[in-house]
Amino acid sequence: MLRPGACIGILGGGQLGRMLAVAAAGYGLKCCIYCPDAGSPAFDVAAGFIQAPWDDETALARFCERVDVVTYEFENIPAETAAFIAARRPLLPGLKALETSQDRLAEKTFVASLGVGTAPFAAVSSAAELEAALAQIGRPAILKTRRFGYDGKGQTRIDAGDSAGAAFDVIGRQPAILEGFVPFAKEVSVVCARGADGGFVAFDVCENVHRNHILDVTTVPASIAPRTAAKAVEAARRIAQALDYVGVLTVEMFVLADGETLLVNETAPRVHNSGHWTIEGARTSQFQQHVRAICGWPLGDAGRYGRATMTNLIGDDIDAWREILAEPGACLHLYGKAEARKGRKMGHVTRIFPENGL
Amino acid sequence: MLRPGACIGILGGGQLGRMLAVAAAGYGLKCCIYCPDAGSPAFDVAAGFIQAPWDDETALARFCERVDVVTYEFENIPAETAAFIAARRPLLPGLKALETSQDRLAEKTFVASLGVGTAPFAAVSSAAELEAALAQIGRPAILKTRRFGYDGKGQTRIDAGDSAGAAFDVIGRQPAILEGFVPFAKEVSVVCARGADGGFVAFDVCENVHRNHILDVTTVPASIAPRTAAKAVEAARRIAQALDYVGVLTVEMFVLADGETLLVNETAPRVHNSGHWTIEGARTSQFQQHVRAICGWPLGDAGRYGRATMTNLIGDDIDAWREILAEPGACLHLYGKAEARKGRKMGHVTRIFPENGL
Repeated sequence: MLRPGACIGILGGGQLGRMLAVAAAGYGLKCCIYCPDAGSPAFDVAAGFIQAPWDDETALARFCERVDVVTYEFENIPAETAAFIAARRPLLPGLKALETSQDRLAEKTFVASLGVGTAPFAAVSSAAELEAALAQIGRPAILKTRRFGYDGKGQTRIDAGDSAGAAFDVIGRQPAILEGFVPFAKEVSVVCARGADGGFVAFDVCENVHRNHILDVTTVPASIAPRTAAKAVEAARRIAQALDYVGVLTVEMFVLADGETLLVNETAPRVHNSGHWTIEGARTSQFQQHVRAICGWPLGDAGRYGRATMTNLIGDDIDAWREILAEPGACLHLYGKAEARKGRKMGHVTRIFPENGL
Repeated sequence: MLRPGACIGILGGGQLGRMLAVAAAGYGLKCCIYCPDAGSPAFDVAAGFIQAPWDDETALARFCERVDVVTYEFENIPAETAAFIAARRPLLPGLKALETSQDRLAEKTFVASLGVGTAPFAAVSSAAELEAALAQIGRPAILKTRRFGYDGKGQTRIDAGDSAGAAFDVIGRQPAILEGFVPFAKEVSVVCARGADGGFVAFDVCENVHRNHILDVTTVPASIAPRTAAKAVEAARRIAQALDYVGVLTVEMFVLADGETLLVNETAPRVHNSGHWTIEGARTSQFQQHVRAICGWPLGDAGRYGRATMTNLIGDDIDAWREILAEPGACLHLYGKAEARKGRKMGHVTRIFPENGL
């Protein structure tokens, strides 16, 4: 169990690292950020930072000496980096969770092995294997690289008549997974935490709407039946348990038209964009919860203060900052990024509504 | 009007500066802290800091070059420092507010000139003047240094039979103010904000209980009549207006036994310990509100999410951190101070209760 005054190492310096560092500071902890990118948003709110490449072992060793535990804000940490760190300091969530989430095929295979639903999938490592997989799974289907995909990157849809070879070219002829296209009714996510003692706490299920493959709006609670929500949380709990997980875990799922069937789309071994509403909307934020878990502290109360919506500010959406500031009850969050590039997450706005007023 | 990405300079690096810096970061602003003390709590959450004495003009000039606006977390900034900065950058709240609050005599004279009630008071600059003041005001009375008093420091009580000369010795024979002892029923504070456009927003009146002259517990809303609360807010508004104030202002008042009479005890040109509950308890925190005001932004909604209590963790109160972490709904804040000295504010805990559940 870490004590206040201890130092948390965070791999990655984006907005998730930034909000983690702020939550850690609230508990009297220090943070040291490790990130290759100059001017990373998290650098500005941390007691220290190291700007160095992922393969710089001198810098990584220096980082490890400064910190008591290491966590990460994104799952695409190179395997060698993760192993180097895990040999020197507790890395939480652990290597198993990190490795599973880094490879879409390993992830889907693992989830399915727990009896938790997924879309039909097949491994693809050549155009010939893709043809065979398409014959098995049917069209439409989504071809995704096994590694390094996010926000719709590294994937392409294959409809009737599309050339398999061309699709394999689109994703760079990398090791891939073919997934059956799921005509889902809703996308939801479970943001939950497992403590070092095996305790498990989930926030209420979030309902997510994407725009251009990027999360646009999260609404909580999701408008799904209580039984479906309980099933979603139970699936997340089973995944966390099987990974011997410590920290905040996010499980994205599709809800099919029957309102009952849940298929896991993706897991993220970290705090998540769909959990940002918890900063104002829950008694413990996802960032505080993650800090509690990796420090070996008791998990916090995940109860809501009200109904919540969280809207991302992508690219030049940020130009509306003045209007949002003037809107009563709108909670504006900006990430301190210098340039509002297209598709870049610049901030978000959360609105909390008293539950019984609706 | 500042834009996100601008840099706020904060004079003072304690917990108030720390929480201000975190609030500013949430709005995409950078902060630079100026403080003479090594290891100041605010250094750990700011994009930059300068550790230098208050009279180091080279360091102060460097500080001014880095920032777009300057504010402060405590009112005892040396006058020369404040003037040096105000000549180079906007200093908010302005010099008039700072100077008034630095001198108890100027403060009381100013407040009384607005028709706002205070305890009876008289200037004292010698033992002879003290005798005359005691004859006029009566005993018991409180003798306070005009400058640099806080948390009960720089003051002594004079009861029947006490020697005036001895009391004047106790406070170091400094320029002083004698105040009539007020048999108050309650202590309350109004934490409010005035914007650059003259807009005014107050949080609900806070009720404060002190222990050893240090704030112990704040409860919101104060259990006073709505008419008394409105009168307290109006007094604060009048003070803010007369100071042409920009930022968060705190006005501490006594409520007498009739439940109606309010006497201003002290003003603080800054965010205040009795406003910490707003972090979780209000739609805009006092720290966000202060940042909004000094940036020239619209003031935020000061509405409450529920009834709130805030309890300070002083000295070794902090040893209870594990129990507080385990208490459902208790929001723990630690300030990252290395040593839990007696009387030192180490953190606080806020509890929010749904209003209609009580």
